[in-house]
Amino acid sequence: MSVKKISFIDKKALEPLAIGGAVLGSGGGGDPYIGRLMTSQCLGSSDGVKVIDIESIDDDALILPVAMMGAPTVMIEKFPSGNEFAKIVSMMEKLLSKSVAAILCAEAGGLNSTIPFAAAAKLNLPIIDGDAMGRAFPELQMVTFTLGGIKATPMAMIDEKGNGCTFDTISNLWTEKLARAITIQMGGSAIVSLYPVTAKQCKDYLVKGSISLIHHIGEIVQKHTFNAYQILAKELNGRHLFQARVRDVERKTTEGFAKGIVKLEGIGDFQNREAKLEFQNEFLIALEEDKVLATTPDLICVFDANTGDPVTTETIKYGLSVNILGLPCDPIWRSKEALDIVGPRYFKYDIDYKPL
Amino acid sequence: MSVKKISFIDKKALEPLAIGGAVLGSGGGGDPYIGRLMTSQCLGSSDGVKVIDIESIDDDALILPVAMMGAPTVMIEKFPSGNEFAKIVSMMEKLLSKSVAAILCAEAGGLNSTIPFAAAAKLNLPIIDGDAMGRAFPELQMVTFTLGGIKATPMAMIDEKGNGCTFDTISNLWTEKLARAITIQMGGSAIVSLYPVTAKQCKDYLVKGSISLIHHIGEIVQKHTFNAYQILAKELNGRHLFQARVRDVERKTTEGFAKGIVKLEGIGDFQNREAKLEFQNEFLIALEEDKVLATTPDLICVFDANTGDPVTTETIKYGLSVNILGLPCDPIWRSKEALDIVGPRYFKYDIDYKPL
Repeated sequence: MSVKKISFIDKKALEPLAIGGAVLGSGGGGDPYIGRLMTSQCLGSSDGVKVIDIESIDDDALILPVAMMGAPTVMIEKFPSGNEFAKIVSMMEKLLSKSVAAILCAEAGGLNSTIPFAAAAKLNLPIIDGDAMGRAFPELQMVTFTLGGIKATPMAMIDEKGNGCTFDTISNLWTEKLARAITIQMGGSAIVSLYPVTAKQCKDYLVKGSISLIHHIGEIVQKHTFNAYQILAKELNGRHLFQARVRDVERKTTEGFAKGIVKLEGIGDFQNREAKLEFQNEFLIALEEDKVLATTPDLICVFDANTGDPVTTETIKYGLSVNILGLPCDPIWRSKEALDIVGPRYFKYDIDYKPL
Repeated sequence: MSVKKISFIDKKALEPLAIGGAVLGSGGGGDPYIGRLMTSQCLGSSDGVKVIDIESIDDDALILPVAMMGAPTVMIEKFPSGNEFAKIVSMMEKLLSKSVAAILCAEAGGLNSTIPFAAAAKLNLPIIDGDAMGRAFPELQMVTFTLGGIKATPMAMIDEKGNGCTFDTISNLWTEKLARAITIQMGGSAIVSLYPVTAKQCKDYLVKGSISLIHHIGEIVQKHTFNAYQILAKELNGRHLFQARVRDVERKTTEGFAKGIVKLEGIGDFQNREAKLEFQNEFLIALEEDKVLATTPDLICVFDANTGDPVTTETIKYGLSVNILGLPCDPIWRSKEALDIVGPRYFKYDIDYKPL
């Protein structure tokens, strides 16, 4: 696959960015429509945001991820004004006694790979072409930085009302535990900045080029609509797992997450077959009877069969015709150590991970 | 009543201090035995801690309360090492870019009016003769500072494992909400520093002289054991509300609090009568049938009829013979505004407060 390197994101480029983010988001990472709207608003009259290679930055420069944490369901209802980004970045700069050189996307997702551009635009900073997951995951310790022994803290967290807190913990799992409790108190979603890293740490542990890849995927979806999933399967070594009509969605917003089960009734080539998807913010597992079609950390991406758009765990609903695409995760997630933090057993599934 | 002004607390003075704190703690504020033990350990080889008048300090000096937050039940099981105090004070000094001049007790209580001495001893700082409640209350916004519009934040919070966080909120009720959620995640108790105040703010809003009063009460209990409650009733304008044997205690540790109901069977002059106490960390209400004997913010103090010791909501148990003493709260708590935050209706009792 040849991906065109992107060096600038303007308002026009936000749309493929949000769509591509939603594809790699595996159903999570937030709503692409909200992400695009909010970021477009923050771009305001600025031309756009520079996207730069991590290799172009001095090793000791400070790189700061900015993201939204919580249940995507809630984010739709609690729209940040945009002024939060300057506040959270300045909280982090004060904690670290250092100025930030560039903003980073913590994960791929319709919201979480667009709102860092809102922050970058507000602060007139560039964005790094890369992210710390290569997809979206539900918990904050699930980043490549954790594999490098890099701490999530100091971390800052604010809500739209004006409340803020900072964390300094003994492990990334403790950060998740404490920050999740605050997310819930803040009403289910919050704006966070965590994993303050040096450019050197990014060079060692980042999933590189993901902004360009996200933009490229978004353009494919925009251009090919109905069969984008087939083109993506081919370009990204994925597999078309299922075509179906959604027969039922059970969902609950619990413990700060959107959790649920999607029941699927095969259509087209998959007639007379049944499958299901289970999710915690992101789709975690696709099953046909007892057969595992795909499982975390591989990506399970859902496309609306009628519009070609990626479907998030929040927007999937009864009656929708969908194509399910499995994509291989970044190789960094396939080690024993990585599977301990993002594999099926972490999410209480009694199965081993089998790569797509 | 004439209270001897105390100017120094050494190891010997810790015992009456812990006992007196437990009396004014109204069943809460932590276990006096633990408080004395921990503080005695922290005093180490130092002579003791100076107790000073707030009037002797410059108006703009920084005064820092240090306390334990959470369910007393849990504090007994999670004994701080003492090194936490230096850590939390230095977190606050960094947040405020200012050095602390003296430590303050946030509340009266067996634990929370002794452990500030542990902090003061470790840091070689004096303690202010006063506190911000004149008793103990379960929630962190329930301090006289709230009446003065003084914010609880910046606030710092740490656990014994090494996790820490800081808060900056829009109201003291929000601080309570967020800090309580973290207390629960930290295992039910935590060490906190909050309400960083100037000496001027203390001069305006502190309940003054409470360290001397606590010590004085402790000495009365030590000296008079069996009838201390009668002497205290006389000296502090209180009332002997009930004498009873504990017939039942229902308790649960929930939402970060120790909550429960104590059923009492009258003995002595109260033979053939029944009463009950309800608590949330502290005793909130004493009822005889439907008749209210006393209610928050007035103090409901329980004494072991056999030893004369104050009994906390944690140590009260089946079969214990007790004397119940009602004491009037500091007048600052009797305004309409104050009753909104500490009166019976705040705790969901459908009754008006009637002063003892």
